[in-house]
Amino acid sequence: MATTSRTEVIASIRHPLLKDIRRAVARGTLTEDGCCVAESFHLLEEAIRSECRIRAVLAAASVRTAVEGHVRGLRLRVAVVEDAAFAELSSTQTSQGVITLVKPPVWTLENLFRPRAMVVVLDGVQDPGNAGTVVRAAEAFGATGLLFLRGTVSPYNPKTLRASAGSVFRMPLVAGLDPTLARAALEQKRLDLYAAQPQGQKNLHEADLTRGFALVIGNEARGVSARLRSGALDLRIPVRGVESLNAAMAAGIILYEASRQRMLKR
Amino acid sequence: MATTSRTEVIASIRHPLLKDIRRAVARGTLTEDGCCVAESFHLLEEAIRSECRIRAVLAAASVRTAVEGHVRGLRLRVAVVEDAAFAELSSTQTSQGVITLVKPPVWTLENLFRPRAMVVVLDGVQDPGNAGTVVRAAEAFGATGLLFLRGTVSPYNPKTLRASAGSVFRMPLVAGLDPTLARAALEQKRLDLYAAQPQGQKNLHEADLTRGFALVIGNEARGVSARLRSGALDLRIPVRGVESLNAAMAAGIILYEASRQRMLKR
Repeated sequence: MATTSRTEVIASIRHPLLKDIRRAVARGTLTEDGCCVAESFHLLEEAIRSECRIRAVLAAASVRTAVEGHVRGLRLRVAVVEDAAFAELSSTQTSQGVITLVKPPVWTLENLFRPRAMVVVLDGVQDPGNAGTVVRAAEAFGATGLLFLRGTVSPYNPKTLRASAGSVFRMPLVAGLDPTLARAALEQKRLDLYAAQPQGQKNLHEADLTRGFALVIGNEARGVSARLRSGALDLRIPVRGVESLNAAMAAGIILYEASRQRMLKR
Repeated sequence: MATTSRTEVIASIRHPLLKDIRRAVARGTLTEDGCCVAESFHLLEEAIRSECRIRAVLAAASVRTAVEGHVRGLRLRVAVVEDAAFAELSSTQTSQGVITLVKPPVWTLENLFRPRAMVVVLDGVQDPGNAGTVVRAAEAFGATGLLFLRGTVSPYNPKTLRASAGSVFRMPLVAGLDPTLARAALEQKRLDLYAAQPQGQKNLHEADLTRGFALVIGNEARGVSARLRSGALDLRIPVRGVESLNAAMAAGIILYEASRQRMLKR
C-alpha cells in the first residue's frame, strides 16, 4: 500500500501500550509518556491539522483500512488491535475503533498573557464535558489561554478532549496550577478579574470586556472558590425563570460577549 | 410522621408502576399514562415549584426519610422500593434514589406565539443533553416556546429533562410536529426565520432579533433540514479556529444575544 506509515499488529491484551492506555482512560489523565488518548476519527484529524506530535494510532482490526486511509502519506506508527481487545480500551460505548496517542503542546504561563489577554480560569470544574466545551468556546471567541487550577478535571481526560473537539490540541493552557500562584500571576498582569456568578451584581452586557481580563468558572455545585472570588467582580448573565445556566454555557456566553465587544471596538 | 402524603411499599419488581417506568426510561419517552420520569431531588423540587401534577414519587428504601422530608405537607403518593429494584429503574449510574412521575403541562401552538415571539425549533436534534440544555437556555433568555419537530429527541426523555434542569416543566412546547405544518405555522405568524449555521452569511450581532423570530437548530451532524432552511436566513456566530460550536452552545448564545438586544431596546 502507498502509505509511508508503519503498521504493526498487537496480538496480546497485555501489550504495554494497551496497558498504558487503559490506565490513562481509567484515571482520566495522560499516558505514562505524556500522551493524551484521543478517541474518534475527528480527533485524529484535529491532531494532524493542529500539527501535534502523534506517538501512535491504534486501529480496531475491522476499521484498519479506514484508519490507514486517514494517515496516508504521514509517517505514523499504526497499531492494529483485535476488535474485542480494542473495545476494552475505549471510554465510550460508541467507539469508532480508532485511538490516537497525541503529545499535547507544552505551554508556560507567559504564553497565556498576550496583550488584551482573555484568560479563562477553571476553578474546580469537575465535569470533563463542561471543561472541554469551555476550551472549545475559548478558542472560538479568541481567548488567549486557560488555567486549569488544582482540583479541576484534567484537560487531557479523554472526555474533556472529546468535548473540546480538538481545541485542547491548540489552546495555550496550564494545568494543575496552585490557586494562590494563579491569583498572584493574574494580579501581576493587572487583568480585570471576573467570577461567573448567577447572583453577581454586574450585568454581563454592562461590563467592559475589551480590556484584558480573566474569567473564573467555578465548581458545578459550589461555584467559585473563596480564594479566587476575593477581589473579583461577580458577573451575572441576566436570566429569568431558571436558577442558573450550566457552567459551560455561562462561560461560552461571557466569552461570546467579550468577542462581540472587541469586534465592535476594532 | 407529620406528612399528609401517603407512603406505600412496593415489594415486587413486577409491579405495573415499575414496569411502566422501566419501559419509559428505555424508550426515552413518557409513561403509559403520560408522565415524565424525573430523576433527582432537584427535579422533584422543580416539579413542585412549577406546580405540575405529580402522580407519584418513588423512593429507594435507603433515602425514604429524605424523600418524605421533601414532600412534607403535600398530598402526594410516595412509593418505597428496595434499593436493588430501584437501581434497575434509573437511567443514571449515579442515581439519588428518587424518581418523580410528573404530568407535563399540555400546550397548543397558539401558546408559543405571544407578541414579539422568540420560538426555538428543534429540527432533528438527537442528543437529549443538547435538547434539554436548549430548553433551559430558552427559558433563561425569555423565549416564548419551543417546537420539537418529528425526528427530534423527546422533550420528555429523562435525560432531556435532567439537562433542562426543570425548564421542560414550565416552557410552552409542542413535540412531534410535522415539519411542513411547523413551517406553515411559522409563515402564518410572519416570524423572521433564522437557521443556526456555522457557514451562515449573517453575523449574529448584526441581525435584528428584537422583532418576533423563530430560530431553527438542526441535527448535530447534518445541520438544519432542507425544508426548514429554505426561506430562512442563515445566522452565523463569528468564531475562529474551530469548525463550529456545539449545537446547544450555539442556541444559547443566539438566545442570549436576542435577550441582550431586547433589554437594550426596552
